[in-house]
Amino acid sequence: MSSKFKKLKQECYKANLELNSLGLVVYTFGNVSSVDRKQKLFAIKPSGVPYEDLKAEDMVVVDFENKIVEGTLKPSSDTKTHAYLYKHWEGIGGIAHTHALYSVSWAQAQQDIPVFGTTHADHLTEDIPCADPMRDELIKGNYEHNTGIQILDCFKERKLDPKQVEMILIGNHGPFCWGKNAAKAVYNARVLEEIAHMAYLTLQINPKATRLKKSLIKKHYDRKHGKDAYYGQ
Amino acid sequence: MSSKFKKLKQECYKANLELNSLGLVVYTFGNVSSVDRKQKLFAIKPSGVPYEDLKAEDMVVVDFENKIVEGTLKPSSDTKTHAYLYKHWEGIGGIAHTHALYSVSWAQAQQDIPVFGTTHADHLTEDIPCADPMRDELIKGNYEHNTGIQILDCFKERKLDPKQVEMILIGNHGPFCWGKNAAKAVYNARVLEEIAHMAYLTLQINPKATRLKKSLIKKHYDRKHGKDAYYGQ
Amino acid sequence: MSSKFKKLKQECYKANLELNSLGLVVYTFGNVSSVDRKQKLFAIKPSGVPYEDLKAEDMVVVDFENKIVEGTLKPSSDTKTHAYLYKHWEGIGGIAHTHALYSVSWAQAQQDIPVFGTTHADHLTEDIPCADPMRDELIKGNYEHNTGIQILDCFKERKLDPKQVEMILIGNHGPFCWGKNAAKAVYNARVLEEIAHMAYLTLQINPKATRLKKSLIKKHYDRKHGKDAYYGQ
Amino acid sequence: MSSKFKKLKQECYKANLELNSLGLVVYTFGNVSSVDRKQKLFAIKPSGVPYEDLKAEDMVVVDFENKIVEGTLKPSSDTKTHAYLYKHWEGIGGIAHTHALYSVSWAQAQQDIPVFGTTHADHLTEDIPCADPMRDELIKGNYEHNTGIQILDCFKERKLDPKQVEMILIGNHGPFCWGKNAAKAVYNARVLEEIAHMAYLTLQINPKATRLKKSLIKKHYDRKHGKDAYYGQ
Repeated sequence: MSSKFKKLKQECYKANLELNSLGLVVYTFGNVSSVDRKQKLFAIKPSGVPYEDLKAEDMVVVDFENKIVEGTLKPSSDTKTHAYLYKHWEGIGGIAHTHALYSVSWAQAQQDIPVFGTTHADHLTEDIPCADPMRDELIKGNYEHNTGIQILDCFKERKLDPKQVEMILIGNHGPFCWGKNAAKAVYNARVLEEIAHMAYLTLQINPKATRLKKSLIKKHYDRKHGKDAYYGQ
Repeated sequence: MSSKFKKLKQECYKANLELNSLGLVVYTFGNVSSVDRKQKLFAIKPSGVPYEDLKAEDMVVVDFENKIVEGTLKPSSDTKTHAYLYKHWEGIGGIAHTHALYSVSWAQAQQDIPVFGTTHADHLTEDIPCADPMRDELIKGNYEHNTGIQILDCFKERKLDPKQVEMILIGNHGPFCWGKNAAKAVYNARVLEEIAHMAYLTLQINPKATRLKKSLIKKHYDRKHGKDAYYGQ
Repeated sequence: MSSKFKKLKQECYKANLELNSLGLVVYTFGNVSSVDRKQKLFAIKPSGVPYEDLKAEDMVVVDFENKIVEGTLKPSSDTKTHAYLYKHWEGIGGIAHTHALYSVSWAQAQQDIPVFGTTHADHLTEDIPCADPMRDELIKGNYEHNTGIQILDCFKERKLDPKQVEMILIGNHGPFCWGKNAAKAVYNARVLEEIAHMAYLTLQINPKATRLKKSLIKKHYDRKHGKDAYYGQ
Repeated sequence: MSSKFKKLKQECYKANLELNSLGLVVYTFGNVSSVDRKQKLFAIKPSGVPYEDLKAEDMVVVDFENKIVEGTLKPSSDTKTHAYLYKHWEGIGGIAHTHALYSVSWAQAQQDIPVFGTTHADHLTEDIPCADPMRDELIKGNYEHNTGIQILDCFKERKLDPKQVEMILIGNHGPFCWGKNAAKAVYNARVLEEIAHMAYLTLQINPKATRLKKSLIKKHYDRKHGKDAYYGQ
């Protein structure tokens, strides 16, 4: 592959393959992007191409105004959502959107995922937010751009920090996850699916299950992410 | 393989293998057919042969009056249903019948699958119809032929268009899916299973879950299938 | 392998491996046996040996009075149940006992599996019987022998024919399946698990789901097993 | 690998790989340790290392006072829990901690797993205990050490014997399992997940399902573990 954006496209390509091999998507569903902050552009999966057929050079490079910078294929139909998030959240390096079963089902149920255990608290201290389905006037407009607005509005309204809560469900649609890079965004998508699955089972076993208590949430989050974190190398 | 219908049989064979590798059938369950519109005949899986043992030359070529045109094996016991659909729905090129877990379970529950999210609306705008179990006088008659009648009756009664709704559940039995060719029919069978699984989970999480609103159904369907569609290449 | 029972042991071995590769057992759970009607003896899995470590020559040959005829290992702890069934049901050629998830769960729920659809009726016309847990005086006695008695009692009480109903659940324990040979017994164990899974989902979707009607049960069973059967080659 | 603890580290490494290949963990979740009773130290998985990247030499050797004896990496963040259990329960040789779906979900539901069938009774005669979530003053203290205290307190309170009940759920967290060695601890973690899955399904099918009766619990436990045990070779 001869491209100025070789490294960026390969990161994006690898993360898209991972999305598929983790079982978070079927056929052409879902997409991952990877950003280059210096050049203010990102590589993203081309629209409607099966994961099995993807090649690294197929990744489309787009700027934050949705202009194609390099690529012969059309970018993902969700590209404008990615661009909006990159433009407004400077700290994020990659975004993953899946149609994973349990994540989507919570989104279709229009319910936040309660923090029921330490698996959840190891990753975030809040319930995983489910944004309301989009208002009709926004749907008729610039839909994918407005999905970005909807995500930011939800975070503002709930006073959430995208560096601490790296995932959201869009009501009746599905999850968007992000992270410091594309690989971390995919990691978060996989972890979200696991948490969504566990929370589903928990409520089936005990419909009156209660949230993890604050002290344990804090303990588990801090041992991985706090200033005195001691998890990992 | 020496056959006038080599290409047709190979398409049919490949689609049947795919049905199996996607986990939509076990043992000898299910079947896929592929039509040749010019010659008014179709290739279909032989009856009761395990997918592991299938060979392309085993596919049986049958005309729309259920007469075997080529083949040493007996065709699928559901052949008359396929013939009836091909004869009356000129637009379809392939048919897939599975015993996939979630699709069959909705059929056994005798319930339509409500459109709960965009994964569903990306493929069709309607609830997935579940036809009533067959009336007794039809069961005693030409059963598989009458299953075809039953499918068409359900579509007429509900004013559905088989080009827009490419799938149906038969009450207490299971799904039939179709499409422009056999591969697309199998794709629809896989997508139906995914939608059926998500709808099941959605109602378990929230028994009062509401349908996706009209504006979002239209938006998602149109971005893939409308006149200004922008999904895919 | 040098043995008078080479063929019998190989059939038994192959069927045991299949049980494992179909995901119906973990570790050393479950067992399959294969009978030689002329010699009135059967080969069965040795007790407590992981499927991964099995060899064909490890199969233990036992007669209908539970006497070991050939083999250096101890036979399955369920051997007496197999012997009892072979002795009293002359038509059966193989028996499979699994700890498959859905089959066991229905047994633990102490409920028959209702005939909800054609997947079930393709194989049997009756609800899959769940025998009551054993009475205390029988447990204290010759337990595995008495499990055989319990199975026959259940069939007598319900007037079931083991040639038509090739499977049973033992309350709080799990399934026993049989058939014309060991391979067919394993097939029935796999089909039972599929039916058990579908029936579970059906009741989750619709707790008031109704049984398949008699005319459809008869139609589907007869097209595979009736005197004018037309399914298969 | 050149190490005084080569055998111990290899046992530990192998058991950790098994945890992953059995599907009981994702990414860096979970950990297994293996003890050397003579030297009063154990090998344990390093913290936060993905299973795919593990090497046998990475295992960290720690004594019962949590002092690192050999290793360049930091040991699992749960190391103090392991140390506490080894110190106080002399009979155990390995410990496994997972984030397996059904085991964690019962823990999140804060419910003991009732003994519903013989699959459970083949391994233990008691309900699988779920310890209460930790009290706040203990969380603020030496958390992982206190998790060990919590486990022992639960066993004392319920008068359970760790040689007979080789598993526990920690409320809102997940399972800890142990056994005569690391391989047996992993075996118990897999069996617990199977039992947790079956118990979940059992209650979904029949919310009023009753426990296995005492005589059958005793019969099945004793035929594997009693003084006249006849299961296995």
